[in-house]
Amino acid sequence: MLIHSAAQLLTLAGPPQRGQHLGSLSIIEDGAVLLEGERIAVVGPSPELLARYPDAPRLDASGKVVMPGFVDPHTHAIWGGDRAVEFELKLEGKTYLEILQSGGGILSTVTATRQASTASLIAQTRARLSQSFRHGTTTIEVKTGYGLDTDTELRMLDALLALHQEGPWEIIPTFLGAHAVAPEYKGDPQGYTDHICKVMLPALAQWWQAHQGEISQPFVDVFCETGAFDLEQSRQILTAAKQLGFPLKVHADEFDNLGGSSLAVSLGAASADHLVTTSAADIQALGRSDTVAVGLPGTPFGLAHQEYTPAKAILEAGGTLALASDLNPGTTWCENLQTTLAIACRYMKLTPAQAIAAATVNSAAALGMQDRLGTLEADKQADLLILDVPDYRHLGYRYGINLVHTVIKKGMTFPIMQELE
Amino acid sequence: MLIHSAAQLLTLAGPPQRGQHLGSLSIIEDGAVLLEGERIAVVGPSPELLARYPDAPRLDASGKVVMPGFVDPHTHAIWGGDRAVEFELKLEGKTYLEILQSGGGILSTVTATRQASTASLIAQTRARLSQSFRHGTTTIEVKTGYGLDTDTELRMLDALLALHQEGPWEIIPTFLGAHAVAPEYKGDPQGYTDHICKVMLPALAQWWQAHQGEISQPFVDVFCETGAFDLEQSRQILTAAKQLGFPLKVHADEFDNLGGSSLAVSLGAASADHLVTTSAADIQALGRSDTVAVGLPGTPFGLAHQEYTPAKAILEAGGTLALASDLNPGTTWCENLQTTLAIACRYMKLTPAQAIAAATVNSAAALGMQDRLGTLEADKQADLLILDVPDYRHLGYRYGINLVHTVIKKGMTFPIMQELE
Repeated sequence: MLIHSAAQLLTLAGPPQRGQHLGSLSIIEDGAVLLEGERIAVVGPSPELLARYPDAPRLDASGKVVMPGFVDPHTHAIWGGDRAVEFELKLEGKTYLEILQSGGGILSTVTATRQASTASLIAQTRARLSQSFRHGTTTIEVKTGYGLDTDTELRMLDALLALHQEGPWEIIPTFLGAHAVAPEYKGDPQGYTDHICKVMLPALAQWWQAHQGEISQPFVDVFCETGAFDLEQSRQILTAAKQLGFPLKVHADEFDNLGGSSLAVSLGAASADHLVTTSAADIQALGRSDTVAVGLPGTPFGLAHQEYTPAKAILEAGGTLALASDLNPGTTWCENLQTTLAIACRYMKLTPAQAIAAATVNSAAALGMQDRLGTLEADKQADLLILDVPDYRHLGYRYGINLVHTVIKKGMTFPIMQELE
Repeated sequence: MLIHSAAQLLTLAGPPQRGQHLGSLSIIEDGAVLLEGERIAVVGPSPELLARYPDAPRLDASGKVVMPGFVDPHTHAIWGGDRAVEFELKLEGKTYLEILQSGGGILSTVTATRQASTASLIAQTRARLSQSFRHGTTTIEVKTGYGLDTDTELRMLDALLALHQEGPWEIIPTFLGAHAVAPEYKGDPQGYTDHICKVMLPALAQWWQAHQGEISQPFVDVFCETGAFDLEQSRQILTAAKQLGFPLKVHADEFDNLGGSSLAVSLGAASADHLVTTSAADIQALGRSDTVAVGLPGTPFGLAHQEYTPAKAILEAGGTLALASDLNPGTTWCENLQTTLAIACRYMKLTPAQAIAAATVNSAAALGMQDRLGTLEADKQADLLILDVPDYRHLGYRYGINLVHTVIKKGMTFPIMQELE
């Protein structure tokens, strides 16, 4: 198929964009892209490709922007239940204790997730994946972490595998048994850490052995934070995971700076995520490393906090900055990565071009998949968006709605925008 | 038609909700509503209505929320062009002067609007009205104000009239010739004020005489602000409009407190809008009046400002608080009022219930239309939403996507949510 006549074809060609290079869209005006099966075959000017491939089926993108599909490298999109009542209680001024007593907080989601059947988890998650896909996310990382016991955590992986195989979305799974201290280990984070290392990670390795080739290898992630896992416990879990051969991610510096991002760098993690209270030294460490710095601006927005990931400092340090939604039931339930970009422009002071690069080529790098995803270049996977806007800057500028006209995933076309009858 | 089995039917029954009364949703669980033509006939429990009207065509709302359509009482939804480049220039740190020199600012929209044909204005605006409608806004106020000359301002009204007659949305027009000082009167706001009073308002009166009965009577609005119209000029314009019989609105206290909201109260305006820098005395004046206080939280969000309309103080003073999108090309381009509500919850600290009341029954009052719109009660207009959520609190809690399953406008059904094929 030949998609042609795009007002702007954003190729994002080249490697992940470090530091001040962030925002190189490599735009072809009146651009075209030829797809062959699941792959991109040729990218270039429309007149040239139209002449060279006169017999290819055509898709006219006149007046529209064509770009790589969004890669969302950090979500908690699988969970049971919701926390809508808790959201209202907080706004009514109820205390944390009152909210806990009324059944709120992360452990309420753990309870609902444990109680949900796998079929119910799949159904609840499918609705969110569908929204995410319709809003342009063609590849989505999804973490476990609302089970906190081996059985539920593995059931979450089973559900993710089933949803990945169902598609059209592509799921990159992450094991986050270390999302919070399991209720069975209340007050004993070291005990739960030991349990993760000795029981859960080996069980994960078994799961992966059984399912290798059916989905990409799970990352292992840790919530390195006051009240969750301290630096040493995080190191124990990540080291054990690394010894088992799993790639790593770290939740670092969301509320407190414990050194999680330097830990991520020292262990060669693919990414360190959140990075709100990151120290200058940690930012320098990230800047010198290949560990991608993932900002999650929906989370401070969702919490009405004032502090966001310090994008400017990360870019000045030469870091590779990516963006993700952090989709989760507690702090930010938004499947629309376009709105995440709009928040990033306003509160992380990214330009639209920077935000787009951070959510495509750089977020692919946060999953170690920059060779396959995130740009429009020959031999990359045919994951594209056609946006119903004449200029890429409408991303960021506009917010709260869906600008996606068509999603193309592995060469398959999904029309999204419907005319109002 | 009988819409039945709603998990929650939010009737919002009763008058506009002043002060601490804000947030009374009057929920009927397992609720039903019988529509007859363009009107609501009966509201009540499903078992009762299903038994009483066995032959009515049915629409099953099981597991869903049914509520009044949103009324958006403050938008600038009609304009030519866009300001996407300006948005990026600002984020690149360009100065106001550099942006003006590159063709940015409100006057660039005035130029684009003047240059647009009426047909082009209609086409550009239709796309925004369609988005707004699909996201649940069944009645939308739209202001002129990017013409700033008689011809273009009246062409904007002509376009709004055509779009209103086309539907399915219902447009409430507002004349905002006093949106900014016209370029022809640069440095002479008093001269432009006199021109509005002596030339433009009489032309508006003529327009209205020609079109009475085809659309609701236009409001007249003024941007009372440093750099636009001072308090005395605002008074002159509003007084002239009032003498011609037009209902009034005022843009007050967006950036500076000039006394615009007390002026609105003293002239009996339907609403005072923005209200970010409103003084304590002005808040008290609003609280004692029937002038509705309209918060526009998308605007500070769009500008990444920290200050929002002080909802708590307005409610404590007994004011009638409404919410609107302020949809415009300069500060906030978001057609999704659900996202506006989500911002209001986080930054104005409204509960979901308060935000819902502020965007239905109270925003109807901001248009003086509380007798016809904004609640689900017998004899009100059949403007309803069916939301694909089990609990009203998902409004506010979730953001950035569309939770609307079906819009019903004047009894006509518009399915919105499509399954992904």
